[in-house]
Amino acid sequence: MAGRTGIWLIGAWGGVSTTVAAGLAALRKGLSDTTGLVSSLPAFEGLNLANWDTFVIGGHEIRETNYATAAKELHNASQVFSLPLLDTVATDLEKWDKNVRVGSLINVGSKIESFASAETRSHRGESTATVIERVVRDLDEFRTNHKLDHVVVVNLASTEPPIDHSEDKTPIQKMNWKDLSRHLNNADGIALPASSVYGMAAMQAGCSYVNFTPSIGTDLPGLCEFAELQNALHAGRDGKTGETLLKSVLAPMFAARNLNVMSWVGHNIFGNMDGQVLDDPINKATKVSSKDHLLTEILGYKPQSLVSIEYIDSLGDWKTAWDHIHFQGFLGTKMAMQFTWQGCDSLLAAPLVLDLVRFTEREHRRGKTCGVMTHLASFFKSPMGQSGPEFAQQFARLKYWSETVAAEER
Amino acid sequence: MAGRTGIWLIGAWGGVSTTVAAGLAALRKGLSDTTGLVSSLPAFEGLNLANWDTFVIGGHEIRETNYATAAKELHNASQVFSLPLLDTVATDLEKWDKNVRVGSLINVGSKIESFASAETRSHRGESTATVIERVVRDLDEFRTNHKLDHVVVVNLASTEPPIDHSEDKTPIQKMNWKDLSRHLNNADGIALPASSVYGMAAMQAGCSYVNFTPSIGTDLPGLCEFAELQNALHAGRDGKTGETLLKSVLAPMFAARNLNVMSWVGHNIFGNMDGQVLDDPINKATKVSSKDHLLTEILGYKPQSLVSIEYIDSLGDWKTAWDHIHFQGFLGTKMAMQFTWQGCDSLLAAPLVLDLVRFTEREHRRGKTCGVMTHLASFFKSPMGQSGPEFAQQFARLKYWSETVAAEER
Amino acid sequence: MAGRTGIWLIGAWGGVSTTVAAGLAALRKGLSDTTGLVSSLPAFEGLNLANWDTFVIGGHEIRETNYATAAKELHNASQVFSLPLLDTVATDLEKWDKNVRVGSLINVGSKIESFASAETRSHRGESTATVIERVVRDLDEFRTNHKLDHVVVVNLASTEPPIDHSEDKTPIQKMNWKDLSRHLNNADGIALPASSVYGMAAMQAGCSYVNFTPSIGTDLPGLCEFAELQNALHAGRDGKTGETLLKSVLAPMFAARNLNVMSWVGHNIFGNMDGQVLDDPINKATKVSSKDHLLTEILGYKPQSLVSIEYIDSLGDWKTAWDHIHFQGFLGTKMAMQFTWQGCDSLLAAPLVLDLVRFTEREHRRGKTCGVMTHLASFFKSPMGQSGPEFAQQFARLKYWSETVAAEER
Amino acid sequence: MAGRTGIWLIGAWGGVSTTVAAGLAALRKGLSDTTGLVSSLPAFEGLNLANWDTFVIGGHEIRETNYATAAKELHNASQVFSLPLLDTVATDLEKWDKNVRVGSLINVGSKIESFASAETRSHRGESTATVIERVVRDLDEFRTNHKLDHVVVVNLASTEPPIDHSEDKTPIQKMNWKDLSRHLNNADGIALPASSVYGMAAMQAGCSYVNFTPSIGTDLPGLCEFAELQNALHAGRDGKTGETLLKSVLAPMFAARNLNVMSWVGHNIFGNMDGQVLDDPINKATKVSSKDHLLTEILGYKPQSLVSIEYIDSLGDWKTAWDHIHFQGFLGTKMAMQFTWQGCDSLLAAPLVLDLVRFTEREHRRGKTCGVMTHLASFFKSPMGQSGPEFAQQFARLKYWSETVAAEER
Repeated sequence: MAGRTGIWLIGAWGGVSTTVAAGLAALRKGLSDTTGLVSSLPAFEGLNLANWDTFVIGGHEIRETNYATAAKELHNASQVFSLPLLDTVATDLEKWDKNVRVGSLINVGSKIESFASAETRSHRGESTATVIERVVRDLDEFRTNHKLDHVVVVNLASTEPPIDHSEDKTPIQKMNWKDLSRHLNNADGIALPASSVYGMAAMQAGCSYVNFTPSIGTDLPGLCEFAELQNALHAGRDGKTGETLLKSVLAPMFAARNLNVMSWVGHNIFGNMDGQVLDDPINKATKVSSKDHLLTEILGYKPQSLVSIEYIDSLGDWKTAWDHIHFQGFLGTKMAMQFTWQGCDSLLAAPLVLDLVRFTEREHRRGKTCGVMTHLASFFKSPMGQSGPEFAQQFARLKYWSETVAAEER
Repeated sequence: MAGRTGIWLIGAWGGVSTTVAAGLAALRKGLSDTTGLVSSLPAFEGLNLANWDTFVIGGHEIRETNYATAAKELHNASQVFSLPLLDTVATDLEKWDKNVRVGSLINVGSKIESFASAETRSHRGESTATVIERVVRDLDEFRTNHKLDHVVVVNLASTEPPIDHSEDKTPIQKMNWKDLSRHLNNADGIALPASSVYGMAAMQAGCSYVNFTPSIGTDLPGLCEFAELQNALHAGRDGKTGETLLKSVLAPMFAARNLNVMSWVGHNIFGNMDGQVLDDPINKATKVSSKDHLLTEILGYKPQSLVSIEYIDSLGDWKTAWDHIHFQGFLGTKMAMQFTWQGCDSLLAAPLVLDLVRFTEREHRRGKTCGVMTHLASFFKSPMGQSGPEFAQQFARLKYWSETVAAEER
Repeated sequence: MAGRTGIWLIGAWGGVSTTVAAGLAALRKGLSDTTGLVSSLPAFEGLNLANWDTFVIGGHEIRETNYATAAKELHNASQVFSLPLLDTVATDLEKWDKNVRVGSLINVGSKIESFASAETRSHRGESTATVIERVVRDLDEFRTNHKLDHVVVVNLASTEPPIDHSEDKTPIQKMNWKDLSRHLNNADGIALPASSVYGMAAMQAGCSYVNFTPSIGTDLPGLCEFAELQNALHAGRDGKTGETLLKSVLAPMFAARNLNVMSWVGHNIFGNMDGQVLDDPINKATKVSSKDHLLTEILGYKPQSLVSIEYIDSLGDWKTAWDHIHFQGFLGTKMAMQFTWQGCDSLLAAPLVLDLVRFTEREHRRGKTCGVMTHLASFFKSPMGQSGPEFAQQFARLKYWSETVAAEER
Repeated sequence: MAGRTGIWLIGAWGGVSTTVAAGLAALRKGLSDTTGLVSSLPAFEGLNLANWDTFVIGGHEIRETNYATAAKELHNASQVFSLPLLDTVATDLEKWDKNVRVGSLINVGSKIESFASAETRSHRGESTATVIERVVRDLDEFRTNHKLDHVVVVNLASTEPPIDHSEDKTPIQKMNWKDLSRHLNNADGIALPASSVYGMAAMQAGCSYVNFTPSIGTDLPGLCEFAELQNALHAGRDGKTGETLLKSVLAPMFAARNLNVMSWVGHNIFGNMDGQVLDDPINKATKVSSKDHLLTEILGYKPQSLVSIEYIDSLGDWKTAWDHIHFQGFLGTKMAMQFTWQGCDSLLAAPLVLDLVRFTEREHRRGKTCGVMTHLASFFKSPMGQSGPEFAQQFARLKYWSETVAAEER
């Protein structure tokens, strides 16, 4: 049986985290059905997953606000959450507000820094080791205070700029843990961003780590090695909620029918904080690369492709994507498919976060494995530790894992 | 090694058949690459499929025209085929024109009858037995004249009205072959439509039978039994080329993400002969039912759904579909996806017909099985003999079959 | 200066009426800006239109409910109105609830009847004269109780079936007032529907009458004559809020550029009560005809056109239209435009109702004219008394009227 | 009666010019109806416009090719023109090929230079005066050889980069003709681009000048003054063929209905040479600015707007635009309209070029005016010499001019 589990959210008062908190509270009170929750599908019934009332929420955040305010802002900007629901879950949200600690700005870039509170800024200049120490202390305290059997750390913070390799002799993508850790200690210019530092701290503190953002996180050979040394579970990166989910579903169809995709243009517009950060071309580069690579992987050739992401204030959290797929059929005949996706990003992402936490807690409870949880690939745009980007195959893998685990139970 | 194979097209001068003929001729002359041909994917390389120059085309047709005229009409109405290509394949098309025989109007309904030539009409009133006899004779002659090792009969004729059960005591859907054949011989009111009669004749003549249309064809328990008695291969029905293909690809995604599809509206417009026939509400009923059932099968519940099909002359062969999918995510949040598909129907269907012929010839050459070819499910909207309508799983089954067959070869 | 004006809504608790009431209350309290209100454009500033606090709402209704309930239902089904706003206007809405009287089912057809309350049904069988008498009495009472200078009656009730002419010798479309009234008195089978009967009663009671629905209302030569006899103002029909508005804006562009519109397909889906009524093919016929005629009028030829309207429950008040316009340019080149309109019907219609009331009150105050208000054509799909359906010209006419009236003021 | 008129195309073998030539030849032979030609509308019948057989085509071009080749390339890339039509007009096209002269690269930027032939490059370094002299000589020769009564020069060349003002003391936008011409003679750094130089040469040679591109052309106060000094007619700029045409039609509707346009996002993709040039961000800046300004002018406020233009090779000449318009209605309700435009750019532009030539020839024949032809505003994205960008009003002005001119005739 599942024990008590902590959900530690990096970016604790952001849109997705706020929806995770409000949604979890609603589920605990029986105010929400399980629509949107993969882990509640009949296929996973045999898994004996943790119940909603075994979870406690905490996290790190660089801004100063609280769940009630953040939820109200989302309601106003994006017409989500009913006000009566927010009233009912207010007590839970207040309780969880108290578990939120000051986050780190280490190597997050100037765009993200611009959102930080004065208190957060006062920590600037901390070394990697100091940040890790602070994060580990916060996680330990959370676990102790709430008598938690396990904590899953989920990165939901804004997208960081790509790591700049220009001055490294050995790029960190090629370093093993020994080299990476030596460089970190020497503080000689290896600039791991917050997402990676949180990941290391989580593993050091005995927690699992899930990276729901395009930031690098623990997707480095050195950190994968570290995860195994620490006997820690991790997974990532970049939650697959909309346009890219559709790419991973539609591109296999074009491939299976031997239709020649000449061009695939995707135009994304939205107006949440994620959009504000991605409006900075440096941060956007990380995201676009995460959304684009899978076409070539699935099709086996590179169509002309274009992914644009633009901040449009009026849309709030409603991510609207228009994709135009131009393809050639038999005898060179040119045809087209277009789609428009109008999804509310936080409401699509939040249940997947809860799913990832439940599946991770289950794998941790199983106690047999460590390292990258490749069976979670269907949740990510750029899944770590495996290569098949077709959604149907990814989902089949999740079900296969589930059957294996359920069989152990009997 | 593959021998010589006949492709016998029911509806031989229709849009899809004409594209099959022009496309096959182009492939033989090296004027077309293999875009759109599933059987040419690397996944099927080990199968040793028949080369394009081993095929000969013939068929039945109720109208009077020829390939050159039909191809020119398609070019004018729908901007498909290049004129230089049509010039180059003219000799092949003329040769195949000579293999076309007068089709049957038996129980096809008044809409289809209205297109028939005087010569075709002169055969009205033929009994089922007479039609079968005539078709068998035509097939035998085709095989003999062209020294064919095998003939695959493919139904590409217009959609027939549903079978009317009102006066039957036992519906033919519940009859075994013994009962069905007895009734046929007694001519006592069992009104099997042309698609079924062609199917029986094909099997009797030792041919394989593929039903690419929504008409009933051999999708009756009695005829499935007959196929096994005759040691014949068959498959069907209703080639999956556009909107329904997308449904079988997208609906599993909504299911896997536990998103609640509240409504799925599909609006189809096109202006080819298929559209003219479907403009008759009776014939349309067969088609709509074939396009709609899979949502419930995939989702496990029945969303409000709507499929409309309308004849719009100006579109020619360009099938344009708009689908609006209204779904609910976490906390009851309503979201939407829309897509528009602009595909040229004959050019999408024709390569699949060639694929089906090649896969069928290969299975026949293998010599181990008879009855329904369930590994061909991915090609059909309403696949016979199996129940999983998810495209990815259907395609996986085709690849699994291919691996099995390829392994036998070694 | 404007006096006190009554707004008498036929279908008083329907979606549009409820939005009119909630919106008017919000405007009076300064809780809403004037977005969506044509009459608040700078172009009409010189008109000295009535202020929001000079209006009182009443009406007829066949169902039993109240504004608060109806508004809450709209909020739940369609995510419109903020709950705090509804709280603030609750007192006004309750006050106006008291002015709602039992409506009439005279010749409204079985679909509309099916929604009626027991009390409404108890009035079935009333003669035309009795209904008129009852309506006039209700209007007089309303005017007296609230000390109103003028009352504008607005028909917002569900769409009635077309009038069936099969048994008339002279169709009522060709009758002058004398003949029409004689037939009414003789009760000899002239079956004028409720929309017309309300119109006659309104005129008889000295009120203005605006028909915002596709029902026939006063759009009959006999009733136009009666309006002039009564010195009454009227206008209609069928408020132009979405797809047809776009047609009246886009079709002139195709005409001005001499582009040949080959086909124009419009597919409308929505889930409000309007949609439930239009799901009945008889009632739908009235609506489709109102949405379709203007293409031919604007283009000067009849393209193949299709208007479908379908009830999709999940959409609530969100009218979603997909239009596909297939046109030919130079040298016969076929091109396409598609649009999707996602508009909330009640919120689009309600401000236009308030505009129509204000413009009508102003024309009445002016005191110079009677009969059809042709300067209001831009508000209607099938404007009475004039023929130019191009939106830009219709709007220019409204501005021209405004300048004329403003000039009289000086 | 109209005399013989020369059409002198700058960018003579480009896509639009080639379509002008092929289309004019087809019209002369009666092979094309007048679809797409504004000047052939009944509204302009009274104008006695020039017949198709009074026109001769010539022009300047920086590349080396010919009409037959250019037309064949368009056919292959974009499925336009029928091959039989091209055969029939081949003789005319060859004749007109002979009237094409080497163009100028003066200040066109490096992107355009990269397309130039060796012969064109050999003219680099020519002074403004030398270019003007050469162009005037070419025009005079054209007029003499073909016994032309008038020549209309139409700029259809690729979009130039914006004029860089950084080093000018007085920007050329503020110079009168005297200052501008003095600077030109002194060759002291005033860098007028080719589009302006051609314009000056045309006026000096007694021709009319129409600028169908976003380049500056004669849209400078100094050159407007020069036009009047030379008694020359001119008009421009940037032919309005697709997305912007729709903006000028749709935005007035939102304004008239007092709907608050919060954001208007337009995403344009296409693959012709225009697209290749605009793929250079410097050249694109000129275009985007021309497509974007009218929203603010029409609405009276500036919504958040975005215009992206991307080169997608597979689309050829098919300009596909997706626009997402997010607007607020009554009580702050957010709604959306989207449209997709799939238009073949050359085929949309070419008839407008012929229209502009005919209307210009008519105005010239009338002999009463010189300077900017403001009645041609409906043809342009950024019309010179007037401010109202609403399409309906612009078109009304054209009709008003037509009525005036027709009245003079009687």
